[in-house]
Amino acid sequence: MEEQVEMVGRAFVDHYYHLFDNDRAALSSLYQPNSILTFEGQKIVGVDDISSKLHQLPFDQSKHLISTIDSQPSSSSGGIMVFVSGSLQLPGEEHQLRFSQMFHLIPTPQGSFFVQNDIFRLNYG
Amino acid sequence: MEEQVEMVGRAFVDHYYHLFDNDRAALSSLYQPNSILTFEGQKIVGVDDISSKLHQLPFDQSKHLISTIDSQPSSSSGGIMVFVSGSLQLPGEEHQLRFSQMFHLIPTPQGSFFVQNDIFRLNYG
Repeated sequence: MEEQVEMVGRAFVDHYYHLFDNDRAALSSLYQPNSILTFEGQKIVGVDDISSKLHQLPFDQSKHLISTIDSQPSSSSGGIMVFVSGSLQLPGEEHQLRFSQMFHLIPTPQGSFFVQNDIFRLNYG
Repeated sequence: MEEQVEMVGRAFVDHYYHLFDNDRAALSSLYQPNSILTFEGQKIVGVDDISSKLHQLPFDQSKHLISTIDSQPSSSSGGIMVFVSGSLQLPGEEHQLRFSQMFHLIPTPQGSFFVQNDIFRLNYG
């Protein structure tokens, strides 16, 4: 069970940032109407507004490099907390941006997971 | 409701780091037997082992400076996700250490909250 939580966390992180960097519009499939994203302090509720926010970010291309992934079972039945740290390379930017992000994943009846909670922060040195 | 989540998050963060920096042993009051802490990748389960880990950290004094607090309601009834970024000043260290930490708070029957999930990472530039 413990190993399964780690495996799900890693697989989700791979999937999430692969979509972000290659097919950002497809990220909407990971959120639901009651999902919450806090992006650099701005709180956005629901798959539609979250998709709009991600679409409107001021860069077309991105490359996420993952440094650490920590996963834990949450108190919600079958839920998983995932905490990520890494770097974000944007086009035309000399330096990578360090970021931290957390996800609360909830199982779906179809055997997959959706993102209930998502909090993203850039780490300023 | 939304404002209340932010207020609880901020009050918890103030309380948590005040205890950490002034009476670290008292942090045990915030965890329960099924709490999980992942500290720099090391997973520790239960209030007893978490208290031991916090007690055994290789510094006696600390000062946390909080930069950001993001709070969201979780899917657990009355639960709150809290995401913190900040700096940690240790004695004899010239430079502050940047850190990120997330907490999943669950309400107690007594009207308070305990920490179900706690994930801590230093942010290396």
